[in-house]
Amino acid sequence: MHADLAEQAAEARRLDAADPLAAYRDRFLPAEGVVAYLDGNSLGRPLRAAAERVARFVHEDWGTRLIRGWDEGWIDLSQQLGDRIGRLALGAAPGQVVVADSTTVLLYKLARAAVDHALTRGRREIVLDTDNFPTDRYVAEGIAAERGAVLRWIPADPAAGVTPEQVAAVVGPGTALVVLSHVAYRSGFLADGPEITRIVHDAGAPVLWDLSHSAGSVPVDLDGWGADLAVGCSYKYLGGGPGAPAFGYLATRHQGVLAQPVQGWFGHRAPFEMGPGHEPAPDVRALLSGTPPVFATVPLQAGLDLLDEVGIDAVRAKSVALTGFALRVADALLVPHGVRVASPRDPRRRGGHVTLCRADFADVNDRLWKRGVIGDFRAPDGIRLGLAPLSTSFAEVLAGMTALAEEL
Amino acid sequence: MHADLAEQAAEARRLDAADPLAAYRDRFLPAEGVVAYLDGNSLGRPLRAAAERVARFVHEDWGTRLIRGWDEGWIDLSQQLGDRIGRLALGAAPGQVVVADSTTVLLYKLARAAVDHALTRGRREIVLDTDNFPTDRYVAEGIAAERGAVLRWIPADPAAGVTPEQVAAVVGPGTALVVLSHVAYRSGFLADGPEITRIVHDAGAPVLWDLSHSAGSVPVDLDGWGADLAVGCSYKYLGGGPGAPAFGYLATRHQGVLAQPVQGWFGHRAPFEMGPGHEPAPDVRALLSGTPPVFATVPLQAGLDLLDEVGIDAVRAKSVALTGFALRVADALLVPHGVRVASPRDPRRRGGHVTLCRADFADVNDRLWKRGVIGDFRAPDGIRLGLAPLSTSFAEVLAGMTALAEEL
Repeated sequence: MHADLAEQAAEARRLDAADPLAAYRDRFLPAEGVVAYLDGNSLGRPLRAAAERVARFVHEDWGTRLIRGWDEGWIDLSQQLGDRIGRLALGAAPGQVVVADSTTVLLYKLARAAVDHALTRGRREIVLDTDNFPTDRYVAEGIAAERGAVLRWIPADPAAGVTPEQVAAVVGPGTALVVLSHVAYRSGFLADGPEITRIVHDAGAPVLWDLSHSAGSVPVDLDGWGADLAVGCSYKYLGGGPGAPAFGYLATRHQGVLAQPVQGWFGHRAPFEMGPGHEPAPDVRALLSGTPPVFATVPLQAGLDLLDEVGIDAVRAKSVALTGFALRVADALLVPHGVRVASPRDPRRRGGHVTLCRADFADVNDRLWKRGVIGDFRAPDGIRLGLAPLSTSFAEVLAGMTALAEEL
Repeated sequence: MHADLAEQAAEARRLDAADPLAAYRDRFLPAEGVVAYLDGNSLGRPLRAAAERVARFVHEDWGTRLIRGWDEGWIDLSQQLGDRIGRLALGAAPGQVVVADSTTVLLYKLARAAVDHALTRGRREIVLDTDNFPTDRYVAEGIAAERGAVLRWIPADPAAGVTPEQVAAVVGPGTALVVLSHVAYRSGFLADGPEITRIVHDAGAPVLWDLSHSAGSVPVDLDGWGADLAVGCSYKYLGGGPGAPAFGYLATRHQGVLAQPVQGWFGHRAPFEMGPGHEPAPDVRALLSGTPPVFATVPLQAGLDLLDEVGIDAVRAKSVALTGFALRVADALLVPHGVRVASPRDPRRRGGHVTLCRADFADVNDRLWKRGVIGDFRAPDGIRLGLAPLSTSFAEVLAGMTALAEEL
């Protein structure tokens, strides 16, 4: 064990020394008492620039420009930020992404839009997998109940994710919509986006991708996939802060065709005409409903600045290196103690986090938190290590996992 | 004109000197270059305490507690803040209000819940008035179209608002839901909440009150009215900042009976069990859908602290004094120039803002903005003066209205 640890420590030092993104760690605010923050895929750490932007926003934009801010950029902030996320993280050309609402609400709107349209064509089945994130499953369940659709479940193997073969086996002329996560929230399994999209399209249906665990970590190429619909959250790798607004993607070819049900003034062709009768915007604004969450998007703007500076490919390269290192450490220090690795070993099938399992991990995680080692317990027996590439060093990964080993 | 102005200036001085809330103006951040901010009912000004709270939140809560914040208060923040708004501003006992989403999304959820339930009883009519805020009308229109309900319009007289008699004339055994604003967004007309609620209840239907222009300005007594459903926004008199989250009220007796359609993980009985199958929370949490907008509620917390310190009755007393003064100034300085007062003269029927009309007011408002006098143009011909009691002095009202007089 001591020899192993020394070897891992030497490797961590080598990797940190060679890491071209190492200096970016200093862009984040320090967290006193935190030994290792290994939950950047649940909540990203705040940038110093986010703190500065927020202070400036309160004093200058909100405090001094006041209501004039609407004429000076707030009015189309949802689309501006959407376009930026699209370009930096999603492979989406302008005019297809908005920032608004929560992931759940945008999921509802997009799924309703797709299912309502499919029902007019006699397609009634919503396909999803048993390992999808709870809110995705609950939203689909609710829509099925209210619209008279049916759920068609793919029995996901948590260790292997949802495969193209599994999707091909269930889609067909009855498929209304397929709802999948690109990176599985527990295992970190990375689905084959382009191949699954192609299979579902061949069956005549659209896919709604949940990109919550991809955006800002794993490059996505929505336009390249010929994707239809997507949602995701901005408080993980994009740095938006706790409960930050979500993003939604509606491919250009579906705009004006798929209609979402929560029609409010910001989805109107001309909100400030305040006229009688709703006239939906002819573009991606039709996804919007209420007043955009201007203040809530300020930290996200700092996160996008950084992603623009670094580039998603460099982020992904470090992400693969971090998760690969974590797996090697797990094999050396934890597997001998009965820990099971629940994440894919093939980096092409792995997102930005790694999940390790043992029956007593609920208790172990409590003890780690007390030591300032912050991972995320995921029932029934997983500790999930979310390794945000821009704020996490290899030494930090090792410090956290060494503490974990000590608790076993 | 000069004599009039001197008299008004003397009155403004008298009123400011006698104003028990005068000192609270210093609690707000200064706005350089702004001569008069008369749009506090569109966007409230930021408190110094809000700026401090936000900075502390980014560094300490988000930056240092990180994901542990969920266990340390974030998890039920929506209800905690809802309870506070309920107690301080709405006359609602705990357990009936949440803070979440946008006003539009909460309107949709609550209206859908009520209409879906009404349809099972054969009630198909959604009653609303032609002067209601656009998003309220658009949401109702969308729900009518998707659920096969019909809209029954009350032709509102913008100068007189919606009267109990008008409501009584249209409700009956076919009424599914009545959707009304408590304070009309243009005229400032204040509807008779308890009387209208009684009339609609006698017809066997619920009312959904939009309290966006009331909350934090006009006391509301939802429980006392026997109210059913309400929504409102927090970025006006409550100080939440641009695009801050909304609040929704679901009376205890309707909980577990009316079900909203956007079922996500935070509306689940136990979100972090992440179990299969949605089990709605048995309480007001069933109104929630996605991850609560934690960061976005930080300024609101400062606004509620101040409201707690001052009390809604003192706020209302100053609000009535401010709008009364504005009407006297309008009569003296503006009406002689062909300006029409579009707001009620009876303070019992008036909310916290006053609207003045003249055919050229779109241009006049542009010129006022250039002078640092910030009101809000409302088509076709109104300048709306929103007089936030805690941040507005009588001298400021006079300065703005004198500038307006000079532009005529």
